[in-house]
Amino acid sequence: MKTVLLLGGFGFIGTNIIKYIDCKTNSDYQFIVFDRNPVHPHNVTFKTVKKVYYGDFRNIDDVEIIFKENKIDFIIHSISMTVPATSNNNIYDIESNLIPTINILNLQVKYNVKNIIFISSGGAIYGDKSIDSISEEILPNPISSYGIIKYTIEKYLYLYHKQNSINYLILRLSNPYGPYHYSEKQGVINVALRKAFANDLFYVWGNGLGAKDYIYIEDFCKIIFLLVEKPVINEVYNIGSGKSYSLNYILNCIKNKNHGFKWEYSKANDNDVKNVSLNINKLLNIIPDFNFTTLEEGLSLTSEWIKNQTRY
Amino acid sequence: MKTVLLLGGFGFIGTNIIKYIDCKTNSDYQFIVFDRNPVHPHNVTFKTVKKVYYGDFRNIDDVEIIFKENKIDFIIHSISMTVPATSNNNIYDIESNLIPTINILNLQVKYNVKNIIFISSGGAIYGDKSIDSISEEILPNPISSYGIIKYTIEKYLYLYHKQNSINYLILRLSNPYGPYHYSEKQGVINVALRKAFANDLFYVWGNGLGAKDYIYIEDFCKIIFLLVEKPVINEVYNIGSGKSYSLNYILNCIKNKNHGFKWEYSKANDNDVKNVSLNINKLLNIIPDFNFTTLEEGLSLTSEWIKNQTRY
Repeated sequence: MKTVLLLGGFGFIGTNIIKYIDCKTNSDYQFIVFDRNPVHPHNVTFKTVKKVYYGDFRNIDDVEIIFKENKIDFIIHSISMTVPATSNNNIYDIESNLIPTINILNLQVKYNVKNIIFISSGGAIYGDKSIDSISEEILPNPISSYGIIKYTIEKYLYLYHKQNSINYLILRLSNPYGPYHYSEKQGVINVALRKAFANDLFYVWGNGLGAKDYIYIEDFCKIIFLLVEKPVINEVYNIGSGKSYSLNYILNCIKNKNHGFKWEYSKANDNDVKNVSLNINKLLNIIPDFNFTTLEEGLSLTSEWIKNQTRY
Repeated sequence: MKTVLLLGGFGFIGTNIIKYIDCKTNSDYQFIVFDRNPVHPHNVTFKTVKKVYYGDFRNIDDVEIIFKENKIDFIIHSISMTVPATSNNNIYDIESNLIPTINILNLQVKYNVKNIIFISSGGAIYGDKSIDSISEEILPNPISSYGIIKYTIEKYLYLYHKQNSINYLILRLSNPYGPYHYSEKQGVINVALRKAFANDLFYVWGNGLGAKDYIYIEDFCKIIFLLVEKPVINEVYNIGSGKSYSLNYILNCIKNKNHGFKWEYSKANDNDVKNVSLNINKLLNIIPDFNFTTLEEGLSLTSEWIKNQTRY
C-alpha cells in the first residue's frame, strides 16, 4: 500500500484523484489529504482517505506535522491559492504559492520524502502563442503571475532534484472539466453547463473564437497513475487531450442538449490565454494506447453529474 | 539631462556605471543612487551623483520616497542581495530579491516611470550547458536559487510590459571583472589578482579546466549606454566578450606578471556553473563595431587599479 500526501485534496483536481482511486478495485494507494477545509466543503465522501490534515498552506507548522506523523511515499501537489483570473496581486501569489512550495521541498529533504508530482499549468505557463501545437521545449512566456509562479516552482523542482536528489514529475495540465467542479472563477465548460441547467445567462469573455484543448478530468487522473507506474521521473509532460475546440463550438454542443441555453459576449480578460493547444506527443510516447474521453462523452458525463447534484 | 535611478549604486557594477559616466565629457546622465550604504563603503567619490538614498531594499518605504521626490527617466536595477555561492536559503532569495523587485515594478506603475534596465545573469540563468555558445533562445535551467530568481524577475518584466506598458531591457551579463571590485564571494579574476598582489594562496574551486567568458566591466558599462541610445526595448541580450578562457589559463596569465603567485585546487562548488559561454550575436547585430577590451588589457588595467589602492 502506497501512501500519497495529496496537497489540496478537496479541490477539483484533488477530489477527482481520490474518487478515481476510490472506484478502482484492488488499488494500492491510500491518501493523506491536506486542505484548507477539515471536511470536504461539498460533503463528498471518500473510501481511500486515511487521514485529513487541514490548515493554512502558508503556515509551515500546519504542513510539517504531516511529515512528522506519517511515512509518505509520494506527494501530489495540486494546491493553488490563486487562479489566473484573480492573479493580480503578484506578491500575494509569491507568498501564498511559491514560498509554501519551497517549504514543502525543504520538508521533503528534512523527512526524506523523495518523490513529488506537481500539477502545473499548460494554459498559463506558455503564454499567448500563435502556434498550433505547443511542445514542452517551447520557451514559456507566461502572461499572468499565476503562470510565472507555476513555472518558477518547476525551476525549483529541477534545482532540488540536482541538489537534494528529489524526484519530480511535472504535469502541465491543459483545461480540465468534469465532475466535482464547484468554482465560479475558472473552468469554462463546467460553469457554462451549470448555467445551462440553471437557465442562467452565460457571459463569454471575448468572442468565443479562441480554441483550447480541454481534457476530461478522469482521463487526467488515470494518466497520473499510469505515469507513476512507468519508469519516468524528473520529466515535464504536457497533459491534454490533443484536440482543440473553440468556446463557441462547445457552447453550441451544450445548446443542442439544452435548447434554452443562452450566452452573451463580454470583453476579453487580459489575464487569460486565448489560443493554446498542447502538443502531447511526449505523453503519447509513454502511453500510446490511451483512450481519451471525447468532448461529447465528457459533456454528457459532466451533465449527468450536475443533474445529480442537489444544488448547482 | 536624464535622471537614472541606480539601484545598488555602490556595488561593483553600480560604481563602475557611475564612474564610466563621470569620465565622459558632455554626458547627458545624472544618477540618483539607492544603496544599503549612505556613502560609498570604500570612499569612492563621484561627480554625476545628484542624490543618495539609503535603506533596506526589502522595505518598500525606503524605496518609494525616491519615486515621490524625483522625476526618474529610467531605472538601472543592479541590486542582488545574494550571490550564487551563498544562495542556499531559497526563501531568503525570494524575499530579498524577487519581492522587492515586484515592489519596484509596482512603484513604476504608480509613479509612471516607464523604463527599466535589469542586470540579469548569463552565468546563473542558463545552468550547466555542455554547448559552446548559448543564445538567448535556449531554455534556461538554473542550478541555483540565485539564477531561478533572476529568471523569474525577467518573466515579471515581460508581464509588466504586457499588462502595464513598462519597457524593459534585460542584460544577461557574463562574468565581469575590473576596478571597484571588493567582494570576496564572487569575481574570480579580481579575487585571484588581489591574492597575487597580497602574496596569498588562491584556492581554486574544482580543477580550473572549465572555460567561461569574462568581460571587462567598463565594456559592459559602455554597452549599457550604447543600447540606451538605440531603439531597442523589451528585449533580452546576452552581454559577454564572446571569448572563453579556462581559469587555469587566466591564473597562468596572472603568474606571468606575478611570479610568486600560487594556487591550490579545492572541491567544486555545486552552486556554480562550469561551462558557460554566451553567444553575443544578437548584441553584435546592434553594435557590430564594438571594440572589446582583450583579457590581457583587462588584467593589466585591473592590476593597475589594485596597485593604486591603499591596501593589499
